[in-house]
Order: sequence, then structure tokens, then C-alpha cells
Amino acid sequence: MALLVQKFGGTSVADADRIRAVADHVARTRKAGHDVVVVVSAMGKTTDQLVRLAADVSSVRPTRELDMLLSSGERISMALLCMALAELGVSATSFTGSQAGMITDTAHTKAKILEIRPDRLRETLAAGGVPVVAGFQGVSTDREVTTLGRGGSDTTAVALAAALDADACEIYTDVSGVFSTDPRIVPEARKLARVSFDEMLEIAASGGRVLALRSVEFARNHHVPLHVRSSFTWEPGTWVDQEEESMEQAVVTAVTHDTSEAKVTVTGVPDRPGLAAVLFRALAEEHINVDMIVQNTSLHGTTDISFTVPGDDLATSTRVCEALLGELEAQGVTSDSDVARVSLVGAGMKTHPGVTALCFETLAGAGINIEMISTSSIRISCMIRADQAEAAVQALHAAFELA
Amino acid sequence: MALLVQKFGGTSVADADRIRAVADHVARTRKAGHDVVVVVSAMGKTTDQLVRLAADVSSVRPTRELDMLLSSGERISMALLCMALAELGVSATSFTGSQAGMITDTAHTKAKILEIRPDRLRETLAAGGVPVVAGFQGVSTDREVTTLGRGGSDTTAVALAAALDADACEIYTDVSGVFSTDPRIVPEARKLARVSFDEMLEIAASGGRVLALRSVEFARNHHVPLHVRSSFTWEPGTWVDQEEESMEQAVVTAVTHDTSEAKVTVTGVPDRPGLAAVLFRALAEEHINVDMIVQNTSLHGTTDISFTVPGDDLATSTRVCEALLGELEAQGVTSDSDVARVSLVGAGMKTHPGVTALCFETLAGAGINIEMISTSSIRISCMIRADQAEAAVQALHAAFELA
Repeated sequence: MALLVQKFGGTSVADADRIRAVADHVARTRKAGHDVVVVVSAMGKTTDQLVRLAADVSSVRPTRELDMLLSSGERISMALLCMALAELGVSATSFTGSQAGMITDTAHTKAKILEIRPDRLRETLAAGGVPVVAGFQGVSTDREVTTLGRGGSDTTAVALAAALDADACEIYTDVSGVFSTDPRIVPEARKLARVSFDEMLEIAASGGRVLALRSVEFARNHHVPLHVRSSFTWEPGTWVDQEEESMEQAVVTAVTHDTSEAKVTVTGVPDRPGLAAVLFRALAEEHINVDMIVQNTSLHGTTDISFTVPGDDLATSTRVCEALLGELEAQGVTSDSDVARVSLVGAGMKTHPGVTALCFETLAGAGINIEMISTSSIRISCMIRADQAEAAVQALHAAFELA
Repeated sequence: MALLVQKFGGTSVADADRIRAVADHVARTRKAGHDVVVVVSAMGKTTDQLVRLAADVSSVRPTRELDMLLSSGERISMALLCMALAELGVSATSFTGSQAGMITDTAHTKAKILEIRPDRLRETLAAGGVPVVAGFQGVSTDREVTTLGRGGSDTTAVALAAALDADACEIYTDVSGVFSTDPRIVPEARKLARVSFDEMLEIAASGGRVLALRSVEFARNHHVPLHVRSSFTWEPGTWVDQEEESMEQAVVTAVTHDTSEAKVTVTGVPDRPGLAAVLFRALAEEHINVDMIVQNTSLHGTTDISFTVPGDDLATSTRVCEALLGELEAQGVTSDSDVARVSLVGAGMKTHPGVTALCFETLAGAGINIEMISTSSIRISCMIRADQAEAAVQALHAAFELA
């Protein structure tokens, strides 16, 4: 008998039929002898609708009130799921973030979990019941309702699994697992039976949308095995777990891509120590998450600094750079949002030095120019033109024989 | 400078425009120098929609989970109202029932308020802010989310006004006050400037839908002056307050009617002491709220007992009576839902004995047969055929010169 945390995303509880299907699956899991803690997101597009409603009402939206508003969505889905479970004869009890003991800091709309006090969940489990917990929300040390930001429900599930010492955390979603690349671009893409936490982190960070980066980090740090699977087919999905030294590792596990980033270039920066620090400190103060950074070799005493940022932050980033032109004694700022990043991820890369060369040869063979490059020990990312992203993904997936 | 509790019902916060109009009114009240505590219902028909959704999901709906579900509605409206107030430069903070210190008993879906600990509301007021409180909800002594049942938001507002020792509780709704009768039936119906708590209790109990009976009882017991007014016209409405001995009282204040009741008759009951007690004890145990009771004069040793119950309880009431036929040695049970109750309410009735006579003469003159009668010191109610209700209201309103 295991203790499982089962998390169901918005599409999994989008309507009455889907909620009943989820209840059926939870009831089967119970019948198989396992203890279950369920974590749910808000139904379908509820959260987006509430955000739109708030925009209709006011141009000023205090984050405390946004959290109060958005945290209503999970109350609805969790109460409905408990009713559907009751009809199947399963005793289930819903818990808000606060009732589940999800204590967070006070950073509204992007709170961080400080501590979990799951006493009431343990009591419910001990009494043979199924606790159904609102994902995405908590209560702050100031007793205010908080939300955890993007991917928050995944984080709730993983954090609860860690706090309850669960045997696994099952993440149910609308895809059947983690694939070797996006199946919409490469139909032969293969579902991966198992990836390591490190690989999953690189996949999530480089454009794979199945799991939020933050929840993978949490799972890795707390050794919570994840099972990503579909709530539409219920078939076994992808296990995300610790790397096992004994296994032979695939050189490349997955090809990912991301077209949501934009490139900013500051031109004619004098080649003096400290100027890059000034630039990136200013961006950090605006909470802009800079990803790739490339500084060209200096010629004639000046250099160009290029970096990528999330597309949403492009306007702010350009403004920050322009405001610094005088201080940097730089020439100008250009930006480009027609870019895409394609990445190769694989734990075996560490010990196979030929990967980079094959990657560059493959893209060159497909007539694709590489504008920026960044690497980690288990990832290679190339910035290319946005309209060549699909061709690049297809060429790399074929070249590394991932099908 | 006064402390006012302003309560806005579902139609008053039904959409973004109406929420902004409410914010504007609250901001004006603040600018006039008053302290304000706002209580809101869920937007428009939200609660009804959630109830339907629950019925779609499951035939089993534990009341704890219903409360969790239904309490989400006010979170949405109150957070949105705080945002609209923020845009107008008014510092506003939303509070759930739990955060507002609304401690209730554990009777889910019809909880009773046990105690209010409005510390956080007082802190917000002291800091110059406007607390916006979720109506209809509380937290039980078991730390569970509860709702207060029908008219719950009015009860929240009145209870908070009492706990905070407010100068008045303003109930904003979609009508402009309490009328001498239903203006849809009698266009000349007059808006009452002032009614006593006792009159308002009789009006609410006999079919007037403006205020929930329970909130009027609470206001009377705690001496909270109520001001019922429109959130569409914002004009002064009707004050509900303590009776002042010095004022000359109108003999009749209002004519009300109610077609939601049904009549049950148990025929051929032996005329022995204790049998009626058996019957009404059994009905009470099913939580059926019996209103009028008439027992005919006994002939040949048997009698007929008629009583009225809410239409929703008719099936249960008939079942209870049929099960008791043997024990009562009665003949049979008949029921009739085509009935209406028309009532005259007025504090001056106590000292004007001719009211009953004029009431009966008026109905007789209109060709309307009276099937049952019940009276209190300030109310006369007659049960008549349902299809004669409008004619009866019109005739009585004219006879007592209420226009």
C-alpha cells in the first residue's frame, strides 16, 4: 500500500463529466489499496476568466485582492470533486490552502511555500478519507490568502508529497507524458518512459510545457518521484526521478523549442570591466529573467552585448537599456522578437563530446543559421530565426535518432 | 461622522459596471466623512449557477462541500469591489467570513452566528480603510467553512452592524424600499418612509421579499436601524427602526401576499385531547415550518385539522400525515397548493378593533371566499384561492387607503 499524491490540472476537471471521470480514477486507486491525497487546479479556463473580469472592473488591481479573487477557482473544483467522490462512496474532504497548512511568504501572486503543516490532511488519511486540496494557494505568515503563481498547482502537489513523505506524485494533464520533442511538430516523437530530474529541469527551462520548472526543482530537492500522465487515457506516462548511475544514459533525450523569447542587443559598448554588470543589475532590479547572454569579441575597443528575455519583458528591457546608454557610453539598442531557441537535452551529453558538433552540422545542413549559443553540462541551446524552428526541431530529432 | 454598514445584494454587483457604480457610492460615503464597512453577496446568479453545477456533478452533495463551493462566490465579488475602490483611491481590504471573525455553529448550509470577532475589521477602519466583507459565510467552531442559508448576506450585514455598534445598516437592493404592497400588482403602491421592526417582521413573514425575516429579527434584537434602498437610483428608501410611542401609527401599513404555501387537511380526527400534539410534533421532527393552523368545530365527535406549510414541504407533510392516520384514528389527508395568503400589517391595529371587520367586508365585496384566518396583534392573514390573490391585494390596498 502506497501513499500517492494525484494532481489534476484545469483541463482534467474542466466540466462535470471530467470531474466524474477523475473521481472514478481516484476511487479505483483507493480500491487498489492506496492512500490518496488529491490536488486540483481551477476548472478549465476559470483563472483566465477571473483575470479578464478583474481587468474589466479596474485598471488598479492590488495583488492581495487578485489572490483573493483567483483562489476562488480551486474551491469550486475541489468541492465538486468531493461531491462526485461521495457519490462513489469515497469519503473525501476538501481543504483550502490555508486549511491544508500551506504556509507561504507574503509575496502576493508569486508566494513561496515556507512550511507545510498538513495535520488535517493526516487526520483525514488516518480516518480512511481522501483529502482534496486546492492547488496554487496558501496562507501567508500575515494570515492573508496567497497564490503561488504559474505552475502553482504542480508545486502544491510536489510540496505536499514531500511533506507527507508520499511514495510518488502523479501529475495528471492533457498529454500522456514527456516526449522526445513536440509531437505536433514531429509526429514520430517518442514518449519517454523515464527522465532524470536534471534532464526534466533542462526540458522545462528550454520550452517543454508539461511541468513547471519550479515544481521539478522542488521534486529534485526533496527526492519526490514524479509520474506525468494523461487524465484522458489514464495510461502510464513518464517517470521523472533521480539519475541512476548504473543505467546507461541516452546521449540526447529530447529536443525542445521556445518561441516566446526575444533578443535585445546593446551595440557599441566600450570594452571596459564592469559595464555588463551595470546592465544586468539594472535588468535584475526590474525582475527580468535574462536567459542567454552573448558578448562578441571586442574589435576597435567596443563590443555588442546580446541577451534574451521573455517576450513579455521585451518593452521593459528595451527601456532599461535605453536609459543606461549614457552611463554605458554605448551606441544604441536593437531588439528582435522573431527568434526561437531550439535545445538538445540529455544526461549522457556530459560524457559524449561529439554532440555539439553534430548539432551544429545538422542545423547547417538544414540551411539554418545559428545566432547565439548557450550550453550547460546536459543541454545545448541555439537561437535561430523563429520561422526555422520547426525545421530545426525535425532535423535534430532525426539526426539524434530519437524516434 | 457615522459608522455605516452598507450591504450590496447580487443584482447590485451583477457585472463590472455595477461593481464600479457601487465603488463610486462607497467612495462618496467615505468622502462625506463616514466610516464604511461593506458587505457583498455573490455576483448576480452565481450562487444558483454553482448549485446547478453541483447537481450536474453528483446526486450526493455533502453540506460541508456545498458550503465550500457556495462560499467562493462572495470572494469574487468582494475582491473585484476592492479593486474598483482602489482605482478611486479608496484603500479597501476584502475579508472572508473567517477573516472577518464570523464564528458560527456547525450546521452547514444554515449555520447560525455564535459570535463575531471583528478585530481585523476594526484595524482596517482605524487605519482609514474600508473593510469589504463576504456576506453569507462564516467559519464554524470546527474550523470549517459554513454558509448562513437564505438571506444570509443581510444577516451578515446586520450582525456586523451590531458587533461594530454601527449607526445604521444600509441594505442596497434592486427595489427602492418597502412598499405598501407589491407595485407590480398595485401600481399606486406607496414607498414607506418608515416601518417598525415589528411591522417589518410581519411583512417579511407574510410574503414581503425585500428583507429576510432572520435579518429583521436580528436587527430588532440588537437595535440596529436598517435603511432599505436601491443601488440603481441611490434615492432614500425605507427606514426600519424601533417603534416610537410618540408617533401616531398608521392602522394598516402594508398589504402582502404569498402564493408559495400549500394547505394540508387531515379529516375525521376524533375530538380527543393530545391528537393535534401528536401530529404537529411529527411535523416538527421533519423540520417543517407549519404556519396557519385551523381546527374546525367538532361535529359528531370528529374534527378536521387544516394547516399551511411551505410548498416545498408539501410532499413530506402529506407523507407524515398519512403515516399517522392509524395512530390518530383519522379518515384521510387532502392537500391543496392552489392557495394564497393575503395579509394586512400595521402597528396601529393593536388599538383599532375595526380592521378585521373591514378586511372581511372588503374581500366579501370582491367575491373572494376566506378559507382560513390567522391573526397576530399587528397582522391579519386570510387564506384564499391562489387565482384571487391579485384581486384581494388590490381591493385591500384601496379599502385601507394605502396609496
